[in-house]
Amino acid sequence: MTKTVPLGEDRRDAIADAAIHLVATRGLRGLTHRAVDAEAGLPPGSTSYYLRTRKALLDACVRRMLARDLTAQASPDAGLEELLVGMVLDLVHNRTDDLVARYELSLEASRQPELREAIVQGGRQLRDGLTGLLEALGIPDAEEAAWPVAAMLDGLMYDRVAGAGTTMSPSAYESAVRRAVGALLTGLQRRDMRSTAE
Amino acid sequence: MTKTVPLGEDRRDAIADAAIHLVATRGLRGLTHRAVDAEAGLPPGSTSYYLRTRKALLDACVRRMLARDLTAQASPDAGLEELLVGMVLDLVHNRTDDLVARYELSLEASRQPELREAIVQGGRQLRDGLTGLLEALGIPDAEEAAWPVAAMLDGLMYDRVAGAGTTMSPSAYESAVRRAVGALLTGLQRRDMRSTAE
Repeated sequence: MTKTVPLGEDRRDAIADAAIHLVATRGLRGLTHRAVDAEAGLPPGSTSYYLRTRKALLDACVRRMLARDLTAQASPDAGLEELLVGMVLDLVHNRTDDLVARYELSLEASRQPELREAIVQGGRQLRDGLTGLLEALGIPDAEEAAWPVAAMLDGLMYDRVAGAGTTMSPSAYESAVRRAVGALLTGLQRRDMRSTAE
Repeated sequence: MTKTVPLGEDRRDAIADAAIHLVATRGLRGLTHRAVDAEAGLPPGSTSYYLRTRKALLDACVRRMLARDLTAQASPDAGLEELLVGMVLDLVHNRTDDLVARYELSLEASRQPELREAIVQGGRQLRDGLTGLLEALGIPDAEEAAWPVAAMLDGLMYDRVAGAGTTMSPSAYESAVRRAVGALLTGLQRRDMRSTAE
């Protein structure tokens, strides 16, 4: 069966997806322009044509993941706890490549300042979204509170793909995530009430 | 100035330290037996002599970091919140190499099952320590609670070395960590009280 190869913007996206998959499954050591061509089912040289340098390739990965993050975040109908739990489970179960690749790329960004900008900006966009949700929950300093919440979600997901969480059953993982998120949100509200009362 | 080269067990430790430093500063792509020789100031071939395979080298890194983790954890005189904040700040400020290398190695372990065992075991040792501390705080299901606490600490540290936390001032980072840890501990206690009352 011949793989259908998309054109234009779609081809760029296909290249970024292939690169993300390589980073997730083989690490940054496995990411080369040639390997991306092969993974995407494109003629040799295609990736170099669209994304000349390694930095351009890495940047394209970050942008592509971010675009998906922003789409995935768009339905705040459920309660905040359920919404956050849902985000975690979606990333962990359906977007494992994005998740692992993001960790790989953000570690690489700690060594390559020119890549860091995209990563930091991406993190900021996600936290801005979280800030809005926390405000809706009545946490007054939502902007500050968004940071620990984001950090915890990151840690919970990290543990699932690269830590002891890899050994948990899906249902044990889900209930542990639900409890952790619930406890943090409860604690953030309590702390605010206390400081308001003082 | 000639670098003093230690012998025996100490030499193994020096090799592991050099390897950890390379992983932290250059990523796993930068880790080779030769590069470790050079970094440790040892004659070419030394690293291969002590740690023949790449897996042996990676395992030695994990064991070395763990040994330091267990030493660093040993003073539970302060309150739990301060103790955890102190652990985070110590790792982030004084043991950055260990921290970044551990993230790199645990991501690699997600692709190399034979490395995963050491990582998972390491995580378990740390959580066991945490469990004891949480029990002392009166959280009845301390073993379950240790997981989100560990995950959050991981996320907070990760963000400092590889996320938006890289742009925070040290004092802003410290107070954000203190608040986050405090909120989670408060929330875990509250939740327990609530479920006891129901």
